[in-house]
Amino acid sequence: VAELLSNLPRDVQADLLEHMPRQQAADALEEMEEQEAERVLATMKPATAADMIAHMAPDDATDVLAEFPQAERQALLDRLPATARQRIQGLLRYPPDTAGGIMSPQVTALPDTLTAEEAIDRLRRLARESEQIYYTYVVDSTGRLVGVLSLRDLLLARDEQSVTQIMIRNVIYAPATMDREEVAALFSKYGYLALPVVDERRRLLGIVTVDDVVDVIQDEATEDMQRMVGAGADERVDSPVRLTLRRRVPWLLVNLVTALLAASVIALFEESLARVTALAILMGVVAGQAGNTGAQSMSVVIRAIATSQMRGRPLRTVMLREILIGLTAGAVVGLAGAAASAAWWCESPYAVPLAIAFGLSLWACMTLATVSGALVPIVMQRIGFDPAQASSIILTTVTDIAGFGVFLGLAVGIVLRHFP
Amino acid sequence: VAELLSNLPRDVQADLLEHMPRQQAADALEEMEEQEAERVLATMKPATAADMIAHMAPDDATDVLAEFPQAERQALLDRLPATARQRIQGLLRYPPDTAGGIMSPQVTALPDTLTAEEAIDRLRRLARESEQIYYTYVVDSTGRLVGVLSLRDLLLARDEQSVTQIMIRNVIYAPATMDREEVAALFSKYGYLALPVVDERRRLLGIVTVDDVVDVIQDEATEDMQRMVGAGADERVDSPVRLTLRRRVPWLLVNLVTALLAASVIALFEESLARVTALAILMGVVAGQAGNTGAQSMSVVIRAIATSQMRGRPLRTVMLREILIGLTAGAVVGLAGAAASAAWWCESPYAVPLAIAFGLSLWACMTLATVSGALVPIVMQRIGFDPAQASSIILTTVTDIAGFGVFLGLAVGIVLRHFP
Repeated sequence: VAELLSNLPRDVQADLLEHMPRQQAADALEEMEEQEAERVLATMKPATAADMIAHMAPDDATDVLAEFPQAERQALLDRLPATARQRIQGLLRYPPDTAGGIMSPQVTALPDTLTAEEAIDRLRRLARESEQIYYTYVVDSTGRLVGVLSLRDLLLARDEQSVTQIMIRNVIYAPATMDREEVAALFSKYGYLALPVVDERRRLLGIVTVDDVVDVIQDEATEDMQRMVGAGADERVDSPVRLTLRRRVPWLLVNLVTALLAASVIALFEESLARVTALAILMGVVAGQAGNTGAQSMSVVIRAIATSQMRGRPLRTVMLREILIGLTAGAVVGLAGAAASAAWWCESPYAVPLAIAFGLSLWACMTLATVSGALVPIVMQRIGFDPAQASSIILTTVTDIAGFGVFLGLAVGIVLRHFP
Repeated sequence: VAELLSNLPRDVQADLLEHMPRQQAADALEEMEEQEAERVLATMKPATAADMIAHMAPDDATDVLAEFPQAERQALLDRLPATARQRIQGLLRYPPDTAGGIMSPQVTALPDTLTAEEAIDRLRRLARESEQIYYTYVVDSTGRLVGVLSLRDLLLARDEQSVTQIMIRNVIYAPATMDREEVAALFSKYGYLALPVVDERRRLLGIVTVDDVVDVIQDEATEDMQRMVGAGADERVDSPVRLTLRRRVPWLLVNLVTALLAASVIALFEESLARVTALAILMGVVAGQAGNTGAQSMSVVIRAIATSQMRGRPLRTVMLREILIGLTAGAVVGLAGAAASAAWWCESPYAVPLAIAFGLSLWACMTLATVSGALVPIVMQRIGFDPAQASSIILTTVTDIAGFGVFLGLAVGIVLRHFP
């Protein structure tokens, strides 16, 4: 239903949802992209929208409400029944990119005073109401998480055994403030179906399930890839053009400024360029080649950060590897470049020195590029930014300045010295 | 354990694993990256390696074996016990990037002739052996998948009810040949914990669980991001330098050729460049700006393909949106660029025509860039390549040629016409 709806115009979507049974409409809204659900709900009467939100699962409802502007969000919250409002307000306390922000408060928890028989009985009753029981957690009288029960162990236990005897005490849990990317890494590492989320006093707040994590991972990958080139983290192929432009254009203007900055390096060599136009042809190749080499290192490091490969890996080891790659790849490409340049200008008196300048600057700039490509996301993260944010624009600025500067500098030193 | 091991030298890893209890060593190997597990096993005696592989879960064992060269894989297979060998050979039939390649053959299936009571009894016994029961499938006498049972419905059913009365008949399943990226999209769409995998006659072959899918999604995202710039799809931040170079350098050489090709456009304007060096300064800015604009569209489309957003979306709609974005963003940046250029060369007699040429070519090239940025991955996919493969290199070639050609062409037409 959600898929069908998403291909219809906004007002038809709202119309259809209003004529569907409430619960079914709420289910469809849960399945839609949050931004899209927000846009549809915004076109409805507040009372109708609030009623649909009240029928949604609290975690999905929270995500959609988080998309609304502050004032409208509050207006909708005020119209919700008290229990739904409290649950959603509790969830809104945590930013959407934390464990608390993606958790569902519908978690199965049993007191640690039950026996196996009582626990099974309790679960049977719960199963009638709740949709899906992933794991059953055990909490003490203050609500603190003390263990997890496997359905299998419970079924195999003797009736009178205490749940504290059957439960696994060593529970892996996520603090509510943990970044959702780290939560995803925990899932990827341990292969769990769900992780309990706790507050700073280890009281059980909710549960993050692996299907939420699947979406988190997709979103994070999309965000990284799009942020890298300065597209909006949440842009989709059907995002409204106006919204898209508002995200993309600022970065394009930043790119214009940095590109002009890099080009101003060229201005220093105006005189030489007028004399040897081969320099104008090759300088862009050096810069472009360095840019692409750096982008290779950068994409590997961004993914390494996203998948928690960097944890515990010394910066020195990472950089040393990049330097080695840069030196070797730069030597290969530099030699090929020098050969191509010598062939192109073979009839010119400065064929050999030009080829040397071209090859050497490719070598130097590509080595610099692998190092800066790896450094940009690492530094961005250390200073508290998203590692991918506009990293491509930053890297290109570095590689352009280096490419133009090193090549033209070398060329003037080597080529023009001999041909005054 | 796997994490600790991965920080040790290869021979120490092998040594430790050989001294651990077999099952524990096998468990650790399951958790390691497949390439890494392959490298460790390759250093052991074949008999020891085969014994460890026999203790691993069949799907993980298959993934590791797939990393071995053909001859060594066969040698290891021959040493395995018959049942393990048959299971793994069955799995090796499907490429690792298909549903069949990532499935586990350990699936819980019950005949459709059982009653609810018999089914629960059977499951209790199975629970003692198998590690995790996600869903229980129902098959007919020929092994064809006919339904799925929820544990909840089973617990609530009357003892004498037939499983065919309780089961859900409308099962979503994945054909063994389905691409793993599409399988991931099914999980993301429906939020399942597991999907059954069937052959062409709908016979139940195995199960894909959501924790496998988490890894698939991470891998696919990594592959797309790294392929885009011509780094190896499977490069990790600790991949051996030699392997890394073997993947990266060919694309860097391709990039060198295409960059020289694009630069040859500049050679057509050598004479004009020598007269107005401002052209040499600005031409790279136009090309770079177009490249970045195209990269934004490209990254959004690559992610859209990866997350199945493109299905059922007419190409015309996608392209129309990109043209609109290009025209608008190009106009904004073109105006800003023209103003910057006019300010930079304000003392020059050709300040105004140069600014017009710069602004117009930014506008034209950025519009072309959004369109080609979106088209490159779409075309790559249509002709059977990975949509992300080296798409950045292809795009840059287009935007470079356009950037140099359009700007220099316009500049010669507008600027130099007035200042002969």
